[in-house]
Amino acid sequence: MNPLKLLVIGGVAAGASFAARARRLDENAEITMIERGNDVSFANCGLPYHVGGEITDRNVLAVQTPASLKAMLNVNARTRCEAIRIDRQNKKVLVRDLPTGREEWLSYDKLMLSPGAAPRVPAIEGVDNPRIHVLRNLSDMDRIIADTAAGMEAVVVGAGFIGLEMAEQLHRKGLKVKIVQKGPHVLPQVDGRMAVPLERALASHGIELFTNDEVVRFEKGDASLVCHLASGKTLPADVVILSIGIEPESTLAREAGLKLGKRGHIVVNEFMQTSDPDIYAAGDAVETTDRVFGKPVAIALGGPANRQGRVAADHLFLGDKARPYPGSLGTAIVRVFDVAAGSTGWTENRLKASGLPYAVTTVNDVHHASYYPGAQMVTLTILWDPETGRLLGAEAVGVAGIDKRLDVLATAITARMTIDDICHLELAYAPPFGSAKDVINIAGFAACNQRDGLVDVTTGLPSDPSVQVIDVRGKPVAQASPVPGSVNIPVPSLRDNLDKIDRNRPVVTVCALGKNSYFASRILRQNGFNVTSLAGGLTALIEKP
Amino acid sequence: MNPLKLLVIGGVAAGASFAARARRLDENAEITMIERGNDVSFANCGLPYHVGGEITDRNVLAVQTPASLKAMLNVNARTRCEAIRIDRQNKKVLVRDLPTGREEWLSYDKLMLSPGAAPRVPAIEGVDNPRIHVLRNLSDMDRIIADTAAGMEAVVVGAGFIGLEMAEQLHRKGLKVKIVQKGPHVLPQVDGRMAVPLERALASHGIELFTNDEVVRFEKGDASLVCHLASGKTLPADVVILSIGIEPESTLAREAGLKLGKRGHIVVNEFMQTSDPDIYAAGDAVETTDRVFGKPVAIALGGPANRQGRVAADHLFLGDKARPYPGSLGTAIVRVFDVAAGSTGWTENRLKASGLPYAVTTVNDVHHASYYPGAQMVTLTILWDPETGRLLGAEAVGVAGIDKRLDVLATAITARMTIDDICHLELAYAPPFGSAKDVINIAGFAACNQRDGLVDVTTGLPSDPSVQVIDVRGKPVAQASPVPGSVNIPVPSLRDNLDKIDRNRPVVTVCALGKNSYFASRILRQNGFNVTSLAGGLTALIEKP
Repeated sequence: MNPLKLLVIGGVAAGASFAARARRLDENAEITMIERGNDVSFANCGLPYHVGGEITDRNVLAVQTPASLKAMLNVNARTRCEAIRIDRQNKKVLVRDLPTGREEWLSYDKLMLSPGAAPRVPAIEGVDNPRIHVLRNLSDMDRIIADTAAGMEAVVVGAGFIGLEMAEQLHRKGLKVKIVQKGPHVLPQVDGRMAVPLERALASHGIELFTNDEVVRFEKGDASLVCHLASGKTLPADVVILSIGIEPESTLAREAGLKLGKRGHIVVNEFMQTSDPDIYAAGDAVETTDRVFGKPVAIALGGPANRQGRVAADHLFLGDKARPYPGSLGTAIVRVFDVAAGSTGWTENRLKASGLPYAVTTVNDVHHASYYPGAQMVTLTILWDPETGRLLGAEAVGVAGIDKRLDVLATAITARMTIDDICHLELAYAPPFGSAKDVINIAGFAACNQRDGLVDVTTGLPSDPSVQVIDVRGKPVAQASPVPGSVNIPVPSLRDNLDKIDRNRPVVTVCALGKNSYFASRILRQNGFNVTSLAGGLTALIEKP
Repeated sequence: MNPLKLLVIGGVAAGASFAARARRLDENAEITMIERGNDVSFANCGLPYHVGGEITDRNVLAVQTPASLKAMLNVNARTRCEAIRIDRQNKKVLVRDLPTGREEWLSYDKLMLSPGAAPRVPAIEGVDNPRIHVLRNLSDMDRIIADTAAGMEAVVVGAGFIGLEMAEQLHRKGLKVKIVQKGPHVLPQVDGRMAVPLERALASHGIELFTNDEVVRFEKGDASLVCHLASGKTLPADVVILSIGIEPESTLAREAGLKLGKRGHIVVNEFMQTSDPDIYAAGDAVETTDRVFGKPVAIALGGPANRQGRVAADHLFLGDKARPYPGSLGTAIVRVFDVAAGSTGWTENRLKASGLPYAVTTVNDVHHASYYPGAQMVTLTILWDPETGRLLGAEAVGVAGIDKRLDVLATAITARMTIDDICHLELAYAPPFGSAKDVINIAGFAACNQRDGLVDVTTGLPSDPSVQVIDVRGKPVAQASPVPGSVNIPVPSLRDNLDKIDRNRPVVTVCALGKNSYFASRILRQNGFNVTSLAGGLTALIEKP
């Protein structure tokens, strides 16, 4: 039998994983990988960190080279080689060697499409200025490094994951950084409350943020350029980073007549086969299944891409033993200076936009035993189905332990756990690592209390002046940062001061973190008051920087 | 209706949680808590850290006091008050005020037994020496602090969680510390391989370890004492800490005729009711259900104790809305200097002893992206059902990210996930936090490879000289730390050197971490060799310090 000919288009996460797994499963296959860029299998998530010098050695980002792929995997990798056309009938691909312009047909038995996604570039005046960059690969990174220096003015357009990382790293390199963000807050995926600590971190490092604004044109200056914003503001810039999202690279697939999704992603089945069973696709260019609701979704992340490549290779070689790709959850995290924030599953914004029913619970608690030095606050929001209690998503922000909570909740969501289930997750507890009741348990308790009618919660201070706001914090704190219009009755003296509260008017209890206000609401409710507790506490409401 | 009278015996984790939750659910109940010790609701897991001065302020360990319980919860807490006898017929408890000796009967409608567990003290000669301590409460801690000083000789008997923490903290205080451990390695819960990094950490701090040995008698000296070991060795000591396990405090329950388990723990149903439905029990003294196999189990941990107390209160007040306690998993972690180790679910030792069928997979990988500075190795073992692939337990050791992996796997085990499921957990990945393929995914991949017959693994070097050991590490490493009797053929040159391996003799491939040996085994197997890969790599086999 002739060896199987595998052709891989795009040699980064999904393509490289596919090739590696294919080789482990078939020592005889002829595996050829073509990559349009200069590099294969590089660490794309690490690129911002080399710009700022946090990763000092560029070589560590080039995880594999054509030479190492040949040596380790006997894979023939060709960089600077672009796929031009797929001839599905004859199972061959026209490729062009970019340095020479020479074209040739490469035949395949099975084809893997892993072209990835390209940074979106807005069609606005002046966007072709060479001082305007995107960041996709090592070559982009090299150009950004060459074009930036301490003291320069940088404007980052878009405050998603890449934009935030780039802002931090350019600041680290000594540039003066401004961020322009179309929406009302950074990290548009998460709720505005969760973004506050990130914006504080940016502000404390002197990074200026322009929200609810966007660049409408770039004006070429003598030594720099000027970003004209929709608001009329103008920001001078020596360098601009565009990080406003990505587009799947699916032109090749479209021209080959493969089925695409609504937003142009390549449609695949659970084994990553496209509408042509001899052509697999994986990575940022494909549409896969949302693990929460089972709907089509496109999630551009390194983890899914790698595992999709593996699933495709398994399907090709493992027969009955191959297992389907179960879909993507969208677990993501970003660090901005000392603050981390992220989400898993469906975020509140996405649920809100979808119109699906959901309940939300926000709690604050420390990341390890409060009595052990260094405890840091974790703010955790869980989203759940009000009917069944099933977890739909989570968002978290804080200085420590954020990745752990997201990972546990990603696992819980995958397992279709409910708010009752997470009450009883038994997580590792020793003082340096956790608490007897982890913030995840606490979130479960709080959600069950809501579901069971033990507490009514609100996420904002009442605007209706007839509502009494009872601040149950200790006197010193309450006096230092008073809540306008509130009456201060600390929890320990509440039972003795019920006569200070009007039984005929609704009450909102407030405290710093949402715990004591809940305690107080239980006392008041059982004494006949109409009471609501401020969930998440006053910290979540603190004015933006 | 008269207010419900609740009496709580034992005011630490389970009892305090019960009282707090009961108060939130019933503002009118009369809640009395009696505690034999000097303190209620203290942070028992924090005690070792104050001995070493890592927690500087003793006050933070006294989470609640009778005064704060009164103020916050309207609970009447009486310390130095011991329960002598339960009169179930008349629903009252005889209690003794320890300072005065005065006895009185306290009546109850519902009783909570949360007496905890007492440190085990071996019945050997000289054990009553005042220099010999156990550590259960703040008073014990105060005595240890008073009796220890820099330069003293300390012997810690028992190298479980408390023993290891105490050894580290006494070292931190400047004592010369020795540990005596009955079994072959520290942290007897986990497999010997996982204990190696802990033992290295102890050795690197000059803490001497005496394994496979035990104290048979204590001899009183003039200014100190001498520990006589079974081996004949003698260890002088200014202070001794006994940390050889605990015994449930179930005498009161036994004398009241409540049902006890085989090992003397109080038997409860899923709502924490004892055999007398008016008496609940929770915490270290009870026997609950193992979440893996559903068998009776006694697990003395703070998390379960707290949640059990809550479940009991819910059962009492929430009617239909009360949810059962789902059982305990036994998730535990310990830090020894910079190394953390722990387990969740069933450990390999426990499975081995039970005779139940299981498969084991050990992998090593970094705790976050290898290209990002500070990546640390995680050694992870998963135990799984060879028939169904269901996860049964996990053990992990390393310098960073151990708690996270245990927590994710605790969640996965609770959800009855399989090795296939953990391949596709989508965990948070950004360079400072994780990897595109987390070590948990890698463990899933490796386990599936075993199950699917892609690799045969071994955990030790072959003793049979006819087996060829092929060391596939790079030449410099292989030459620096050679494997006796091996042939060094690095993976990249393996395909070109197959003729150097005898096809008629079995082959074991070895490398540092177990990854390249797997890669090599795939190449060799597909070329017709009878090959086994050393799982976990050579690091797991390195000689003990």
